[in-house]
Amino acid sequence: MSREPAELLVEARDGSRAALARLLTYVESGGEHHRVTAALAYAAPAPYVVGLTGSPGAGKSTLTDRLITSALTRGQVGDAETFDQVAILCVDPSSPFTGGAILGDRIRMQDHATDNRVFIRSMATRGHLGGLSLAVPDALRVLGAASFPFAFVETVGVGQMEVEIASAADTTVVVTNPGWGDSMQANKAGLLEVADIFVINKADRPGVKETRRDLEQMLDLGRAREWRPVIVETTATSDEGTDALFDAIDAHRRFLDKDLLASARRQRTRAELDKVVSAVVRSRVAQLAHESAYEAQIDALVEGLTDPYRAAEVLLDES
Amino acid sequence: MSREPAELLVEARDGSRAALARLLTYVESGGEHHRVTAALAYAAPAPYVVGLTGSPGAGKSTLTDRLITSALTRGQVGDAETFDQVAILCVDPSSPFTGGAILGDRIRMQDHATDNRVFIRSMATRGHLGGLSLAVPDALRVLGAASFPFAFVETVGVGQMEVEIASAADTTVVVTNPGWGDSMQANKAGLLEVADIFVINKADRPGVKETRRDLEQMLDLGRAREWRPVIVETTATSDEGTDALFDAIDAHRRFLDKDLLASARRQRTRAELDKVVSAVVRSRVAQLAHESAYEAQIDALVEGLTDPYRAAEVLLDES
Repeated sequence: MSREPAELLVEARDGSRAALARLLTYVESGGEHHRVTAALAYAAPAPYVVGLTGSPGAGKSTLTDRLITSALTRGQVGDAETFDQVAILCVDPSSPFTGGAILGDRIRMQDHATDNRVFIRSMATRGHLGGLSLAVPDALRVLGAASFPFAFVETVGVGQMEVEIASAADTTVVVTNPGWGDSMQANKAGLLEVADIFVINKADRPGVKETRRDLEQMLDLGRAREWRPVIVETTATSDEGTDALFDAIDAHRRFLDKDLLASARRQRTRAELDKVVSAVVRSRVAQLAHESAYEAQIDALVEGLTDPYRAAEVLLDES
Repeated sequence: MSREPAELLVEARDGSRAALARLLTYVESGGEHHRVTAALAYAAPAPYVVGLTGSPGAGKSTLTDRLITSALTRGQVGDAETFDQVAILCVDPSSPFTGGAILGDRIRMQDHATDNRVFIRSMATRGHLGGLSLAVPDALRVLGAASFPFAFVETVGVGQMEVEIASAADTTVVVTNPGWGDSMQANKAGLLEVADIFVINKADRPGVKETRRDLEQMLDLGRAREWRPVIVETTATSDEGTDALFDAIDAHRRFLDKDLLASARRQRTRAELDKVVSAVVRSRVAQLAHESAYEAQIDALVEGLTDPYRAAEVLLDES
């Protein structure tokens, strides 16, 4: 029995995690419920989003765990809002089954497994027409509509999609380790482009100084930006440096005053609309190919009565 | 000064190679001339097309050279038509400059460099909205409209695009060498799927028996088809086996009686239309993103007055 998104959203706002989970499933699944959910979600304010990405094993989960504590303890980000709950979306594009990993995440983020102020969700796509790179922004808007003013998105890996998802955030944190060069070589430039904050996690290991120097050097050589990415050293396992990381996130949010935040979000909105338009078109074309008008155009082509370009335009203008 | 496609086509039919070359340039370049050229070309009968593909260095050019001789000497393919001229399109998707390689091809195919019955052209794309995989079928139709009843398409390499282009032919020839397993391992299954004829070229080298056994075994294991791919051994450099290869092409063309040929071509027409529809859509979306209606939808999104899915539909329905 599927329930109406509007009804579920009221319950989610009242604190029902089950209702919120159902809405996110609607987003993942595509279809009519997704459309209604999106319409409701985009009418609400967007949450402030912090994206975290980095190689598998860099320590992102432990770090996120610590950041949740910081966020809940300190009770505010920037000077605009206070908040009493936080959401975490975990995305692993390489795994088709992340949607089933919720229990695993709860065990993983042990400190907050039973904390009702914390909502942890693994994202998967089971039919969303734009895949994860569109499902995640939709899910974030749902969290905003469900009264979460603040959310983390954690992606595993530093491939193009992982970076794209994590960087569609207000503040993007790239998690490295001493000697990071080896594991992230392939996409160093891409990470440099999107990072607002670099974390050198596992800073109790040797090579921190060299890694910091390496990063500073890359930043010196990179495109000049108004915000120079901050480098923070952490040892998440012993909770060292995580407050400093939270300060850095806070500082970046302060830096993004109302104008900068609005212009960055407008740019992301444009990128998202581009992707949605392409996805809608792809699905329309797929639908088109099953219609009798399509067969008629193929007949006409075979008989030499048209050419494929004219046929395509006739089909698209009639669809 | 750009001349009208209709006028050029009349000249090309009268034997002007310059006019034909200009028409093919229109196809490569995209734009309005391309559209008119396509409209004219698709009204004419398609030529019978033989596709050749294989790893670089397998000996395709020498083999094609020999096949041209066979074709012109024997004067017919199948029992349907005789012909007195033949065209060869050379495609190297990995090279952005193949368009400039015409002189190279003429030198390469030495036997026919000065033979006016032979038309050799390297294909490149310089703006065609669908890239080479759409430019090549268009070019083949232009050749048909210019009274070539028969054409070869030779692609270098066995990657996805090379195989896609070469297999959009009536008869597809995959050129291997003794010990071919090493060089084509990655795409064996794909080649097996598209090949009507396997050639073991350089058959004067050791390992022919093993390669034939390997191929037969793959064919035994593969999907059963009405036409079991033929294996022909050739040594193109000394012209051994090339007549047998031409016989095999001829046999395959006879096998494809009117019904089979028509149904295979209809299937390819559908695949081509799918690609053209997608390409036209992509170009429309790109255009759309520059219009003021697009900005208005982004405004509405930022203000929370719509969602990206509704915005996309409004834009697409108005475009």
